[in-house]
Amino acid sequence: MKLYGYWRSSCTWRVRIALNLKGLGYTYEAVHLLKDGGQQNSDAYRAVNPLRTVPTLEFQEGGTVRRLSQSMAILEYLEERHPTPALLPAGPWERARCRMLSESVNSGIQPLQNTSVMQFVKKEFQADEKAFAAHWNARGLTALEAMVQETAGTYCIGEQVSFADLFLVPQLYGARRYGVDLTPYPTLTRIEAACEKLPAFQAAHADRQPDAVPA
Amino acid sequence: MKLYGYWRSSCTWRVRIALNLKGLGYTYEAVHLLKDGGQQNSDAYRAVNPLRTVPTLEFQEGGTVRRLSQSMAILEYLEERHPTPALLPAGPWERARCRMLSESVNSGIQPLQNTSVMQFVKKEFQADEKAFAAHWNARGLTALEAMVQETAGTYCIGEQVSFADLFLVPQLYGARRYGVDLTPYPTLTRIEAACEKLPAFQAAHADRQPDAVPA
Repeated sequence: MKLYGYWRSSCTWRVRIALNLKGLGYTYEAVHLLKDGGQQNSDAYRAVNPLRTVPTLEFQEGGTVRRLSQSMAILEYLEERHPTPALLPAGPWERARCRMLSESVNSGIQPLQNTSVMQFVKKEFQADEKAFAAHWNARGLTALEAMVQETAGTYCIGEQVSFADLFLVPQLYGARRYGVDLTPYPTLTRIEAACEKLPAFQAAHADRQPDAVPA
Repeated sequence: MKLYGYWRSSCTWRVRIALNLKGLGYTYEAVHLLKDGGQQNSDAYRAVNPLRTVPTLEFQEGGTVRRLSQSMAILEYLEERHPTPALLPAGPWERARCRMLSESVNSGIQPLQNTSVMQFVKKEFQADEKAFAAHWNARGLTALEAMVQETAGTYCIGEQVSFADLFLVPQLYGARRYGVDLTPYPTLTRIEAACEKLPAFQAAHADRQPDAVPA
């Protein structure tokens, strides 16, 4: 498998964790979201992914090259094809909660801080794009902290690492970048600390990727 | 089951279509997103859904009242509990494509035009919030028109109505509201026309809801 991604892209990061947890090897092709006007906007990458987003997962299925984008779609696909270890809980209600928590990041926070949106806010509105991102992070994390109370154990859903943790950890990294004070979210940061003890999360960390730029 | 929603909320609309297609009866509780400073911001509704979003689906499971938000989480839950008729294709690759198309709306377009974001853009940036919404609609629909070519039949994925159609139809309604020219998206509008022939889509239409406000 080949993963097109960017070190600091939270959506790519989610997929890296899943691949690591499931023990699936992959090659990594960096797509620099800022260089050359954004390499995701090149004709070559548009042919890979018309959405011009990362990640894209490329793999063979029945001799055909398949390319899949959208981190949630990729995670669900990996879960179906490589079910062990499971990253969704066993019960339908717990699975539903897990997807709800995940989507509260996936559709509730991240879209408002992705590169193209932040560039638009800065350029078109001459506004502080980091403050914009911080606003939606704080709002979304406040809801997530409240919602996770119902299910949290060591991880977001009890004692099992699940999709929800894969969405949480990269999001908190982003929130810190935008200057969000994380003290109102003690459950979320506690879960993050637990996840960061796991090798699969450690290896997936933005700062450890080949295209990472030292601070 | 009880569905908290708003007539013109595209996320609520997706769930209405699914409930109708699966023949699941429900009561509808309107949450007016604009009245009284937004009824979703009331303490009563926050207790139902800390995200302050619609829809929320309320139901009983094993004698316990369950509340689920995030339209994609709700759709996946309905699909697991009420699998007939299936709204996800049978093959893993086709399911993955279906989720990818759905997420390109769910996380790629809708979050940038939801009520709270548009209100923020208008108030904080003194900007034209409809032009902001139109920009992201046009960008996302351009990618969706390209992606859907690979799988489109009568519907987004061949001849089977799927999640992707549930995301598409309400999104095109929104795009028109924001003044997006839909002529560059002939495949998407052709699929929309096919969907609108189905009673489940007709009954779910925004304009047919009890809380709809005539134009």
